[in-house]
Order: sequence, then C-alpha cells, then structure tokens
Amino acid sequence: MTYCVALKLKAGLVLLSDTRTNAGVDNIARFGKMFTWTVPGDRAMAIMTAGNLAVTQAVIAQIQEAIDDPNHQGDTLLNVPTMSRAAALLGGLMQGQQNQWGPGLTGMNESSAATMILAGQRAGAEPRLFMIYSAGNYIEATEDTPFFQLGEFKYGKPIIDRVITSDSSIEDGVTACLVSMDSTLRSNLSVGMPLDVAVIPNGALEFSVRRRIEADDKNFHAFSDAWSAALREAFTKMREAPKWS
Amino acid sequence: MTYCVALKLKAGLVLLSDTRTNAGVDNIARFGKMFTWTVPGDRAMAIMTAGNLAVTQAVIAQIQEAIDDPNHQGDTLLNVPTMSRAAALLGGLMQGQQNQWGPGLTGMNESSAATMILAGQRAGAEPRLFMIYSAGNYIEATEDTPFFQLGEFKYGKPIIDRVITSDSSIEDGVTACLVSMDSTLRSNLSVGMPLDVAVIPNGALEFSVRRRIEADDKNFHAFSDAWSAALREAFTKMREAPKWS
Repeated sequence: MTYCVALKLKAGLVLLSDTRTNAGVDNIARFGKMFTWTVPGDRAMAIMTAGNLAVTQAVIAQIQEAIDDPNHQGDTLLNVPTMSRAAALLGGLMQGQQNQWGPGLTGMNESSAATMILAGQRAGAEPRLFMIYSAGNYIEATEDTPFFQLGEFKYGKPIIDRVITSDSSIEDGVTACLVSMDSTLRSNLSVGMPLDVAVIPNGALEFSVRRRIEADDKNFHAFSDAWSAALREAFTKMREAPKWS
Repeated sequence: MTYCVALKLKAGLVLLSDTRTNAGVDNIARFGKMFTWTVPGDRAMAIMTAGNLAVTQAVIAQIQEAIDDPNHQGDTLLNVPTMSRAAALLGGLMQGQQNQWGPGLTGMNESSAATMILAGQRAGAEPRLFMIYSAGNYIEATEDTPFFQLGEFKYGKPIIDRVITSDSSIEDGVTACLVSMDSTLRSNLSVGMPLDVAVIPNGALEFSVRRRIEADDKNFHAFSDAWSAALREAFTKMREAPKWS
C-alpha cells in the first residue's frame, strides 16, 4: 500500500509520500511515489501516485516522454497554460492506461485501480491541488477541504482534520503531514520509510523543499520521539480533564 | 459501519462501542452493539458486534434464548465453565448463521461477514478477551496486543497503539477508548453517537461501569473539547521540537 498526503494552504503546497509498495506482505519493495518538475519562474509541479504500480509508472513515463520529445505535438506538463489543463492531461493518460489494461486485469481478478495527486502553481495563478481517480476524472481541493490523501489514509486523517486549515503555515503543514505519516507508519506495515517531502511556497514557482528522509534519519527519529512524548503528555493531561461520566 | 474497541488490562476489561448502523449513507439507524450479562460473584460477560446485523442479532438472540430456556440442554453463556468455552459457543453460533445465510447472500452480492468481541471473567480465573471471526474461529488477546477493535478501526488505532499497555489503569483505558472513538466519530460519518461503555474490574465479577453516553451528553462534549485542546497544544509544541531536516 501507500500513504500520500498533500495540503493546499494559502501559504503554499505541502506534499509527503512514503515509498513502500507491496504485492502481498511477502513481496515488499521500494518505489518513489513523488515526481516533480520545475520551470524556474514559470511553474512548479508535483505528482504523487498510489495503486497499480504498472499503471502509475506508465502514466509518469508518458508524461516524461512527452516533455523530453522536442517533436511532441500537444500538451505536456511543462507547456499547459493552467493547472486544470494539467489535471485533464493526467486524467487522459490515466484513462488510456485503464482502457488498455483494466479489462485484462479484471479477468485475472487483479485490480488496475490507481489514484494520483497533482499539485502545482503556474506564474500568475494560485497554487492548486487535484485528485485524479482511476476513471481519469478529477476533483480539486478547496478551502473547505484543503487536503487530499492517497492509500492508507485513515490512520493519519484525525490529526489533519483537527489541526490543518487553509490558514495554517507551511511549517505547521509539514509538521502535520509528518505526524500524520508517523502515526500511519506505526500502525500499518504496508507503509514504510524512506519518505519524500516537497514544499512549493505560494508565488515561488519552485520547490523550497524537495528531499528524501531516510529510515535512519536521526532528525526524523528525534521529531517522531518528540511527537510521541507530546501525545503522551496530552493523554496524561486528560486525567485532569472533565470526567466523561 | 461500526467502531468497537476492547482492552484487556491487568486491572480489568474496558469496552466501548458506537451505535450506528448503515446500509448505504441514506439508510442510517441506531442499534446497540454491546450486550452484557452478569451472575454476581460468578461471572461478568460482554459481547460487542459488527458486520451483518441480521447475523449478529440472530447470534445474540440464540445466546439469550438458551439462557432464558430452563430446559436448554448444553452450554449457555451463563453456565460454561471457562471463557474459552464461551468463545467456542459464540463461534459455533456464528458458524451456524454463516452456513444458513452466507451462500444466499453471496448469490445476491451481499456480505454475511460479521465479527464479535467477547470479554469477561469467571470466578477463579483471569479476565479474558476474544475476537470471533465470521468463520466462527477466534483468537485471544495477550499481553503483547492487549486490545481488539471491530469495524472502522484505523482512525482510532494510532492513539491506542501509543498509550495503552497491559499495565495501563482502568481510568487511562477508558480515556484511551473514548479518545480513540472521538477521533473516529470526527473522521467517519458511518460511526455515530450514542456510545455504550462498560468496565469489568479484575476480580469484581460485575460491571463497575455500564452506561450509555448520549449525543447531547455535556460531560462527553467537555471531555472531547479537552482532548481537542490537548492535541492542538501537543501539535503547537512541535514548533519547538527537533527539526525534521
């Protein structure tokens, strides 16, 4: 499985993904699920993927091939004029993959289901965040619900629900994503280190953060321990809270 | 859906369940999912249920009818000599219901799946906690994993994973269950108030707590607000935590 989370804050876009894939618990591997592109001064874009790995790899490969091909006709991620055109491009590629492989996989009782998150900003426009479904259709995050999640989303949803609004700072956003991921890592073996984290500050048109947090990262362990301690302290404080009965 | 959680602590057994059932989001109802029996000085027992409501209601009805029938031959929940015999009794009734309704429901693309938690203590024995699966087989909680959950378990698992061990007090156990439920209620509409809560202190052979928390319970709202505040404070404290990069 997978856990990816992305926030659309007024301050910018925050993305975090794990890197574990599995076909059964006895077949675990590491694949990056975050892909980023920048045209300095023009656009910064990121895609995160979940679900059937052959499908999502094929979509990412098609996106990259179109960008790399100087003779490519039509839209590419780096020449579309708007983020919603980028979402439509991604949805079309997803639909093509599903049409190609879906029926065969269904016949084998396998799933071709896949989902993607697209985040980015173009010069002169706001940061935008999309979720692309298996069918190729897509939705966009709004101020009411300023985040999307992929994969094993339930463990890490309560903390995001409680602490994140559109007005949250980038720093709080990254902290919330990491805490949400940390809870998921502890409770579900199918989500695993290392992590990929990215930040696109509003108006920067580039990534202020784009890095991998490895499993042995001492700073992340200290961060994780600090959250455990803070959570336990919050829990202990409940001994003085109003009684439930 | 459903959320039920039960803890087996050295200090005793703690149980909490919601009361929402749904067949689609447009068909929501309220059904108790916690059933309790006491023979003072001899045994205290509780069952929580999830899954196909017709199946779990039939199992509970059979248990109660056997208890109520003075001519009943064989085991009842109130005369079995051990908790594991009680689990076997429950598993047998589950298996019978599955055999009776499973094939027909499968043919209609409906699920007969159901799960149950059995918790209790007999005079002279330790408190024990079992999970009964659809097939009728069952497992028992141990010190390594002193809790079981039914239904929408993922939202509320991280907090239990972090704060509960066999050595936790009853009071902390109830708090952890309520906090775990509160997170689930906020993140998933298919789990809903009111709640049923029960406590069987080790050696008491009766319930020290067996009550319903209604949706308008002011104390529970205050408790829930206190947890939100404590959690937000814990999160804010992370601004001073070691940086993740």
